[in-house]
Amino acid sequence: MFEAAELGHVIDKKTFKEEVTRLRADLLEAQFELREKCGFPVIILISGVDGAGKSETIHDLYDWMDPRYLSTQTFTDPSDEESERPFMWRYWQALPPKGWIYVFSGSWYSLPIARRISGEIDQALFDQRIDQFNRFEAMLANEGALVLKFWFHLSREGQKRRLRSLEKDPRTAWRVTKESWERLKTYGQLQEVASHLLRMTNTPWAPWIVVEGTDDRYRSLTVGKMVLDALQQRLAEQHERHYPVAPPITHKIDTLDVLTALDLTQQIEKPKYELRLARAQGRLSELARSPEFKKHSLVLAFEGQDAAGKGGSIRRLVAALDARQYQIVPVAAPTEEERAQPYLWRFWRRIPRNGRITIFDRTWYGRVLVERVEGFCSEADWLRAYAEINDFEHELSADGVIIVKFWLQISKEEQLRRFKEREQIAFKRYKITDEDWRNREKWDAYHRAVCDMVDRTSTGAAPWTLIEAEDKNFARVKVLETVCERLEEVLQVVSPAAAEAAPEEKIVRKTDEKKDKKQ
Amino acid sequence: MFEAAELGHVIDKKTFKEEVTRLRADLLEAQFELREKCGFPVIILISGVDGAGKSETIHDLYDWMDPRYLSTQTFTDPSDEESERPFMWRYWQALPPKGWIYVFSGSWYSLPIARRISGEIDQALFDQRIDQFNRFEAMLANEGALVLKFWFHLSREGQKRRLRSLEKDPRTAWRVTKESWERLKTYGQLQEVASHLLRMTNTPWAPWIVVEGTDDRYRSLTVGKMVLDALQQRLAEQHERHYPVAPPITHKIDTLDVLTALDLTQQIEKPKYELRLARAQGRLSELARSPEFKKHSLVLAFEGQDAAGKGGSIRRLVAALDARQYQIVPVAAPTEEERAQPYLWRFWRRIPRNGRITIFDRTWYGRVLVERVEGFCSEADWLRAYAEINDFEHELSADGVIIVKFWLQISKEEQLRRFKEREQIAFKRYKITDEDWRNREKWDAYHRAVCDMVDRTSTGAAPWTLIEAEDKNFARVKVLETVCERLEEVLQVVSPAAAEAAPEEKIVRKTDEKKDKKQ
Repeated sequence: MFEAAELGHVIDKKTFKEEVTRLRADLLEAQFELREKCGFPVIILISGVDGAGKSETIHDLYDWMDPRYLSTQTFTDPSDEESERPFMWRYWQALPPKGWIYVFSGSWYSLPIARRISGEIDQALFDQRIDQFNRFEAMLANEGALVLKFWFHLSREGQKRRLRSLEKDPRTAWRVTKESWERLKTYGQLQEVASHLLRMTNTPWAPWIVVEGTDDRYRSLTVGKMVLDALQQRLAEQHERHYPVAPPITHKIDTLDVLTALDLTQQIEKPKYELRLARAQGRLSELARSPEFKKHSLVLAFEGQDAAGKGGSIRRLVAALDARQYQIVPVAAPTEEERAQPYLWRFWRRIPRNGRITIFDRTWYGRVLVERVEGFCSEADWLRAYAEINDFEHELSADGVIIVKFWLQISKEEQLRRFKEREQIAFKRYKITDEDWRNREKWDAYHRAVCDMVDRTSTGAAPWTLIEAEDKNFARVKVLETVCERLEEVLQVVSPAAAEAAPEEKIVRKTDEKKDKKQ
Repeated sequence: MFEAAELGHVIDKKTFKEEVTRLRADLLEAQFELREKCGFPVIILISGVDGAGKSETIHDLYDWMDPRYLSTQTFTDPSDEESERPFMWRYWQALPPKGWIYVFSGSWYSLPIARRISGEIDQALFDQRIDQFNRFEAMLANEGALVLKFWFHLSREGQKRRLRSLEKDPRTAWRVTKESWERLKTYGQLQEVASHLLRMTNTPWAPWIVVEGTDDRYRSLTVGKMVLDALQQRLAEQHERHYPVAPPITHKIDTLDVLTALDLTQQIEKPKYELRLARAQGRLSELARSPEFKKHSLVLAFEGQDAAGKGGSIRRLVAALDARQYQIVPVAAPTEEERAQPYLWRFWRRIPRNGRITIFDRTWYGRVLVERVEGFCSEADWLRAYAEINDFEHELSADGVIIVKFWLQISKEEQLRRFKEREQIAFKRYKITDEDWRNREKWDAYHRAVCDMVDRTSTGAAPWTLIEAEDKNFARVKVLETVCERLEEVLQVVSPAAAEAAPEEKIVRKTDEKKDKKQ
């Protein structure tokens, strides 16, 4: 892997000067065009062996381009804001908006490499991360990002020489620390880990470029030219690239599906409703305050047809919570800053810290529902979204975020009844818009989209709970009780209130439904 | 102050129910209108004695309004991201965008009150904070925010009773901690501190409303009605309110001013330039890495006419820095999220952590330069901006941020020469736009605006340095050396490179200029 980077590439001063004059002008032009077009985000990873000239090259990039539209991202020990959120959160926060070039000095690769060398994680865990990164980078590339990954290599002898010469120069001596020398001892391990890593993450959408680090001029010029080539090529491209990550949708051959299978006649009468609601609220209130919850956070996702009662369910739910502990995120059109980022970015930024709760009123599933049905994005885009969403939720849940997802289902007749009812109410906030009526016309298309969504994204870590919402009381109780059950399951806590509930009162959960129907 | 809140106000259940039915509908309407119009941000502070029902009332507000557009802000111990930034940073981050209602459970008042009671700060420091908060809130009000401050009061006996009854109820017992009882001992001190605070911060733009906390129904209903009244009144208002904070501009009676007084003929020849630049870069590089700097951060503000050479100066400056340590912020039109906030918000969000540097290429002074000259904001708006900007910079510098501000000045002839020169260059990125030519026509108006700006905002903590930029070499060296001097002054470090420089080489600083000219 690294043989070609130990050949002793050298560029003489004169050639360098000539080349740089041209390179700098071209880079500035390309960068200007990127900004003018607000084209795409550019992510440049600079990784590799200590002393191989990472900061020198970053310095040169700044010198050659307009430094105002460059930014360097570094990652030291995670802050408490960061360490209380999933591993990838800090990297999502650091992504460049469209038109910007961010240089990553250190990246999602750094920590796993260090941990693998020190033996803190085994090969299986390391490979799990590798897989995660490949998927993450595929998502970035499919969202239009240009991802360039550089690995600066030095032979063992070369590294020793570089460190010594850095140490001698008073301007650079500070950069050689005790740790640099320490790490020289693990040179062999780094090579082993890195060569495996590079091989496994050298993908068509985010290839690695190995650069010999010995000669300053050779190294920087190589990187500069590679960046320029990639920029020019991408700027000239007429079509976006797509890296398929998902199989196509297969068509149903009968009318039986998860939605038609729902029994919408289920209801709960008022006195019983009030009792069960109060009990579930008490349970939830205790669970959210339990010491076990402080090591987790909770993400609730609400989807459903217009007027299916998401708002009402959310109100009953938050009534049990301390207002300082949760945040409701109503998902409408993305803001300008959000539109300049991959579509999951706006959800990542709202992921709660430990001990906190975020409730999404409409969610990232907009991509495979409204955007698919209305044609706001291409088929390739919504098709890959299933896999990306699964990855997203998997990353959250693997790091302790508890995810509960609800689809609230009502019949077409019930929706019409509620629309008409709302038209009678004077409150402006309830007014039915033309859009609501238009959405209604696409009932069947939405129906199919929901079925595909449940089919592809109901995972072990983040299953969908379908809520029969024809009766509001039933829906509200089922939502609350489902949240309680999930919390109890994950936190391994049984609330006394739960134990109190008579078994016949318990609402059957999705997974138990089949069993139950047979009885 | 608190007498009227110890009268034993009580609302019976029936009246409460009736009133709430109406109140809720009206609140929802008002909130809907607020959102539709994207009108203004609403800040509701809920403060007061422990056990006086703060969370109960927040709970009721959520119950009565649409919880999706409410958010509660709480402030626990500062995170490391927060504690490495100025005191007000976390509160700026927590401000609501237009159209949103944020309830502050705890606020900028909490910490100073606690510290005053514990004796950590004396009365003078406390009063300093009070003054700061008044100015901050005036800024918020002038920016259109509706600020409502509630103080929940209980008599000493009343507080004891409330805590006991909270403790008895298993649903609320968890909220009464050892600290609650501890704080009961300092009841007298809290009353003293609070009555002084409330008197001093009870302003026309952000008045305090003292509410008796004993009766749950009375307290919540009072708050609900006050919020509704304030919302309705503001929504009905045709004109924005202005609370004047600045005296008008006085007109000059001669042509002598800080800009015409500049000696633009100063220049540095190439060999000397290179030597001095390299030396200053070496100095800066050391200073930025010094352990003393880790307790500070640096904010550099660059303003100047078009083509005055801001970009070139910034490039020479960052050449001395580690790319991982600084961020350049090119200030263009604000984004959608930024437009929904007070105008200083976009700058607050970029304030660096300790040990870091932010370089603003154009700054918050846009308000009193381009926005004033082009009429993008009203006279009242840019007039108050002087005071608001001084407060902003004062807050930064009081908390260890080092601020260096540059105005780069060239003559009208030199600008024309540079414009023409640029038109000859093929690089698109350099192209002179129509806007540049238009700005040039307003030369005199900008000249006046710059003089007023320097006049009103050159403060001890954040003085302006005027740069004679006719000669690029001279400008670049002066910028770099000024930054070094300021750092050495604040950090109390003398870099060896500085000592090396021959005295005749030193560029005289603004404050020394007069003295120097006399010689």
